[in-house]
Amino acid sequence: MNPQTRNSLSHARQYDRYKKLVERTLAGIIKDRLPRSIYEPSEYVLAAGGKRIRPVLLLLSCEAVGGNARKALLAGAAIEILHNFTLVHDDIMDHSASRRGRKTVHTKWDTNVAILVGDELLALAYRALLQTKTPHIQEIAKIFTEGVVEVCEGQSYDKEFETRSAVTVDEYLLMIEKKTAKMVAVSAEIGGLVGNGTRASIRALRRYGEHVGRAFQIQDDLLDIIADEKELGKPVGGDLIEGKKTFLLLEALRSARGQDKDLLVDIVRNKGGKADLIPEYRRIYHESGAIAAARRRIEQDIAKAKRELHRLPESSARSMLEWFADMLLHRTF
Amino acid sequence: MNPQTRNSLSHARQYDRYKKLVERTLAGIIKDRLPRSIYEPSEYVLAAGGKRIRPVLLLLSCEAVGGNARKALLAGAAIEILHNFTLVHDDIMDHSASRRGRKTVHTKWDTNVAILVGDELLALAYRALLQTKTPHIQEIAKIFTEGVVEVCEGQSYDKEFETRSAVTVDEYLLMIEKKTAKMVAVSAEIGGLVGNGTRASIRALRRYGEHVGRAFQIQDDLLDIIADEKELGKPVGGDLIEGKKTFLLLEALRSARGQDKDLLVDIVRNKGGKADLIPEYRRIYHESGAIAAARRRIEQDIAKAKRELHRLPESSARSMLEWFADMLLHRTF
Repeated sequence: MNPQTRNSLSHARQYDRYKKLVERTLAGIIKDRLPRSIYEPSEYVLAAGGKRIRPVLLLLSCEAVGGNARKALLAGAAIEILHNFTLVHDDIMDHSASRRGRKTVHTKWDTNVAILVGDELLALAYRALLQTKTPHIQEIAKIFTEGVVEVCEGQSYDKEFETRSAVTVDEYLLMIEKKTAKMVAVSAEIGGLVGNGTRASIRALRRYGEHVGRAFQIQDDLLDIIADEKELGKPVGGDLIEGKKTFLLLEALRSARGQDKDLLVDIVRNKGGKADLIPEYRRIYHESGAIAAARRRIEQDIAKAKRELHRLPESSARSMLEWFADMLLHRTF
Repeated sequence: MNPQTRNSLSHARQYDRYKKLVERTLAGIIKDRLPRSIYEPSEYVLAAGGKRIRPVLLLLSCEAVGGNARKALLAGAAIEILHNFTLVHDDIMDHSASRRGRKTVHTKWDTNVAILVGDELLALAYRALLQTKTPHIQEIAKIFTEGVVEVCEGQSYDKEFETRSAVTVDEYLLMIEKKTAKMVAVSAEIGGLVGNGTRASIRALRRYGEHVGRAFQIQDDLLDIIADEKELGKPVGGDLIEGKKTFLLLEALRSARGQDKDLLVDIVRNKGGKADLIPEYRRIYHESGAIAAARRRIEQDIAKAKRELHRLPESSARSMLEWFADMLLHRTF
């Protein structure tokens, strides 16, 4: 085992420890509350697992400015609950029947329950956030709220793009900045505030989050077409079949020519691609340079994210944040 | 014109002035923001009018403890936006096609838009609230959040009761305390906090709001069956036809006997009553004492609400709050 592998193993173990702290905090948020008709599905949602990226980033950011991660646990839980609120409502809007191998709330219960559970989760997120002991609570609550506003705007653009024939790569980037990157940035920024960091470090953390969040989303788009089906845990090419206007599709639409371009235009026109054409789409993505463009963007964002970290003092939390950015770059699922 | 009529006319004019202040603040919340797909329906909702009871109560409560109502305008707007968030989502859940003579959001646009607009409104409510300049902002945000949690719990009970055959009057009262009264109490309490009132006055205002809020909801139930159709602006007996388990139905189910009781049990069993039987239901409500019981409860709540006001110093705002409670008692629509 070379030193780097050993190091990243210990980072992974460390990540898992933070994740478990978050899970434990989440498990304490709802305990046998009434009415069960709203709290049972809420518990179900919060127990679904997942990578818990946002709260772990929040805890690490708190430590990276010299704070105590345990004091940021409620804020971390708040960010994760908020994220789950968006998933519950997005799943209704996208008619998604399953998530993380389990039925979605509107499928297991019904749409009314899912609307209400989402609303309740958003309130519970604020409740957890406001319990955080810090002199910066008003600023934190404002930042959190701007995050919620932008997530809603991002989702609104996302739904709008589904029915629009022409969407530019820039519009796509604005959408994912709002829908995904903003909340990752908010997590890092709030962590820095709870940890009582300097203004400069908090700004660096926020920018780190913006870059990491955007890279994460583009990587998601990329994995949909280049991942191994087993590792991904879902069929490869799902975005193409649904006709989702991902970074790759928009980039390829811009650079492909001739018959290749016609094939892509068909995906948009028919609001979805054909499963048997996936190898063909993959070839076009490669040959048009869309995959290279996505990789370049991800690498640039990760490099910028890591550069922001240099503004922070050396610490094990900072090195975890570096590892985290690299891990995103190399993730395969 | 006797002095009391003259006085209440000036109170009504005064109320209208507060209401206009609220309307103006609401109109400034969203101005040509993007994406239009979310902000156009949001503007539509906030411009719908209505009585604006909660924000006006908040402003009056602020003044009643010696504060400046203008400093409470953003908090008032926050409460009203929050209220509208619940209306947009409730209308989806209740399949209501119209409200205040206009199409509901999910009817004019679609369910996805209505879910997202509700979410956005909740975020905008927090944004307005957090802009309030007061040393009590953390406490205010916590109280506001507990209000949101209870509104969701109340709505959850309400939906649960629709499909349950047996609901007690006490369960009904718990439901309306959460779904309606709590937010009115929160409005008064936050007004007192923004106005920097003493702990005793803030507590009195909160209790005033609880009583007024509950009386308001029971009066709503009552008007459904005893109001004049023209004044009410919708068909009389709507709750009965929908089979809603109102205070009156539950109270009458408890006290009616024989054939009268059978008729009421049929409403529950068939999940709705018959339009041609409304005069008959009204007779049963009268003869079983349900209407008298509702009136008694409303009168008691209003008396208690006014008693709480005696804990506050005399002022024109306090006399407005008294008038407001009385007005609820005598309202006919």
